[in-house]
Amino acid sequence: MEKAISYAKQNHDRFIEELFALMRIPSISALPSHAADMVRCAEAIRERLLKAGADHAEVMPTTGAPVVYAHKTTDPKAPTVLIYGHYDVMPVEPLELWTTPPFEPEIRDGKIWGRGADDDKGQGFMHIAAFEALVAGGELPCNVKFLFEGEEEIGSPALNVWCEEHKELLAADLILVSDTSMASLDCPTVTCGLRGLAYLDMTVTGPDRDLHSGLFGGAVANPIDVLARLIAGLHDENGHVTIEGFYDDVVELTAEERAEIAKRPFDEEAYRNSLKVGALQGEAGYTTPERTGVRPALDVNGIWGGHTGEGSKTVIPSQAHAKVSMRLVADQDHNRISELFIRHMERHTPASVKVEVTPSHGGAPYMMSPSHPAYKAASKAIEDVLGKPALPFFSGGSIPVISKMSALLGAKALLLGFGLGSDNTHSPDENYPVENFEKGIETIIRFYRYYFG
Amino acid sequence: MEKAISYAKQNHDRFIEELFALMRIPSISALPSHAADMVRCAEAIRERLLKAGADHAEVMPTTGAPVVYAHKTTDPKAPTVLIYGHYDVMPVEPLELWTTPPFEPEIRDGKIWGRGADDDKGQGFMHIAAFEALVAGGELPCNVKFLFEGEEEIGSPALNVWCEEHKELLAADLILVSDTSMASLDCPTVTCGLRGLAYLDMTVTGPDRDLHSGLFGGAVANPIDVLARLIAGLHDENGHVTIEGFYDDVVELTAEERAEIAKRPFDEEAYRNSLKVGALQGEAGYTTPERTGVRPALDVNGIWGGHTGEGSKTVIPSQAHAKVSMRLVADQDHNRISELFIRHMERHTPASVKVEVTPSHGGAPYMMSPSHPAYKAASKAIEDVLGKPALPFFSGGSIPVISKMSALLGAKALLLGFGLGSDNTHSPDENYPVENFEKGIETIIRFYRYYFG
Repeated sequence: MEKAISYAKQNHDRFIEELFALMRIPSISALPSHAADMVRCAEAIRERLLKAGADHAEVMPTTGAPVVYAHKTTDPKAPTVLIYGHYDVMPVEPLELWTTPPFEPEIRDGKIWGRGADDDKGQGFMHIAAFEALVAGGELPCNVKFLFEGEEEIGSPALNVWCEEHKELLAADLILVSDTSMASLDCPTVTCGLRGLAYLDMTVTGPDRDLHSGLFGGAVANPIDVLARLIAGLHDENGHVTIEGFYDDVVELTAEERAEIAKRPFDEEAYRNSLKVGALQGEAGYTTPERTGVRPALDVNGIWGGHTGEGSKTVIPSQAHAKVSMRLVADQDHNRISELFIRHMERHTPASVKVEVTPSHGGAPYMMSPSHPAYKAASKAIEDVLGKPALPFFSGGSIPVISKMSALLGAKALLLGFGLGSDNTHSPDENYPVENFEKGIETIIRFYRYYFG
Repeated sequence: MEKAISYAKQNHDRFIEELFALMRIPSISALPSHAADMVRCAEAIRERLLKAGADHAEVMPTTGAPVVYAHKTTDPKAPTVLIYGHYDVMPVEPLELWTTPPFEPEIRDGKIWGRGADDDKGQGFMHIAAFEALVAGGELPCNVKFLFEGEEEIGSPALNVWCEEHKELLAADLILVSDTSMASLDCPTVTCGLRGLAYLDMTVTGPDRDLHSGLFGGAVANPIDVLARLIAGLHDENGHVTIEGFYDDVVELTAEERAEIAKRPFDEEAYRNSLKVGALQGEAGYTTPERTGVRPALDVNGIWGGHTGEGSKTVIPSQAHAKVSMRLVADQDHNRISELFIRHMERHTPASVKVEVTPSHGGAPYMMSPSHPAYKAASKAIEDVLGKPALPFFSGGSIPVISKMSALLGAKALLLGFGLGSDNTHSPDENYPVENFEKGIETIIRFYRYYFG
């Protein structure tokens, strides 16, 4: 693998330039107005994969944004790895909080700045670079398939059906993904768990029109107030979610498992300070890593109603709205959880309003045991590059398609992510350290060797 | 007064056209971008007052939108009436709910449609028309002053100081205002009470940046959730406001007063149906007219935070915001109530967030006894025109400047409004029946005769 590693080092500057070219395309999957950018980004990745050494690369239509599929067959009898990544990015509002424009990437203070620097253009590109290096060095020990999708940030609505229709094409022995974070380069981790997601939109409707709050205030239920009560009622005073049946399928941790999680250094004070909050808040009886890693959570991601502009308008609005998401852990099923949420709302809505809840998207939680050979090979590669073996990490994030693809293909997924908590994924000033990009590529090359070599 | 009444009838079509000209000016006081429209509207009214017969009319600067002042002295020894009105209007969003554009007035089904049709261009114009008719007929029995302001819908922030500085200029024996509603032309009412207002903006700040709700969800207080809890906590299960000391200064009604209020026919079922709600909701132990007329109320007029656009964004926002207003009754003081609100928030805010509350504007409640001679003269004029004497009505709305001006000038204000509950003031499709406009003018002419004649 030495040739590949040295090739990667020699071509570092070009790799950065090529990543920048992808980051300049504003491939925001949540906004239909960016549909043409999705196609443009997919085309750019297809061309890049061919250049890297793929036998074949293709932009394939789905019912939504297209996917990029590519493969290289080294030896039909060798095992096959399926690299999964996504070329879509999150919206960029509020724009005024970006130091430099989100789609004009640059390097500053040793970091790549811009939307997608980490999530997932930067991390996804490491795999293209590692693949090119292995092909160039004649050291690729397995068959490789690539799948880059364009709807990960909106829950991969098209990919599930597409994967089912292309099950044969995707057949692989292992799914390899870099779309997660590690604690730090000093404390490398491999993600062994992902939370699932159930995302819902809700609307509370009161009077059939906006009312003058002076003439009607006090006599009519205010949809904002009812929405606030419904939201407030979703947690009890111990931070438990109150939805009936919500915890029924949650796998409670054993004392051993909790001790394992507690091994990873975690500085609660530093965490709190990094967020500039006066206190942390969460489910009673669990530590912060447990609250984000192995316990479900419910958050309101957006709320609006009435007059939200400048000035003051004395109005009782006809409607108030919220976007609510629940992060799920094994073995919660997002469809069942959405149903429980709807039933809870039906039960708690007063007669003075109507509440409409619409499930938006969701995905199952995912787990890989740290005793799996792929985890062990990854830990060894990490130790080579970073000087320390990996610790298992249960992430709070969701990549809904992972559990789906894993189940569909009958292959485990290794979540070999190099992001950091400070990368501001989904926020203004997203960034990705150049060092992580470089060491990520080398780690991936070494992983190929230890697992497939 | 017959000459004036007949003059008004002959000039009806012209009056409507002249009102339309004023309604075409988008004088939205809440939006700084409309500053030029405020000046344009004030100028148009000044010219109209001169045409109607004012000795003098002037657009006078304030620290905000200008006021229009005019006067006509008939006899220095005669009593003086001060007509108060406002030429500013509310914002017009959501625009898509208007049948015809808000600033393109038209008559349809016997009603004038457009922003300001009722509140307060339509009602204010009735006084210009009545004045012109009385002058033309040589029947004006008193001196008249006009004051049209341009900031009523944002709480008259400039007018209070301006009135103090122009106390001599405004000196009058009675203040006459048409900016309220009556139950219907079949059940005419005169407004004897107005609720006061305390309007506040609040912001809940959690983490110093938007966070990925997967990575952080469950461990960090979500500002939307905290805001929802704070709002939900503002009412108890009986619909009482929970702010400590909120009811301390509320004048509780006697059994006789409550019986008087109950005399006015009120069809709770029709009221509920007109709003298309499944049930009414309010303070336990009070009827709907009491809840809106003589009891204070708290409403959230706007709320926003997180992702409020299309698509789904999995974010814990750094901030969440609300606009909250409280409608006050005698003898609540809006400054004290704002302080109590702030103290309540300080007491109930968890350590995990910061809450900032900024009082925006406010005003005192107002009352006129139905035994006042001006009320009786108005009731007689109403009986002439509509066939029935007036009933006293305690309105839930606020005209903060009324109580201020009344106290400042030592003169009671008669609130002789001709609006209807169906006029959609502050909402899309604001309208004002042509019949109310016509009969309002005649009633005003007759009131002059009975009170000053």
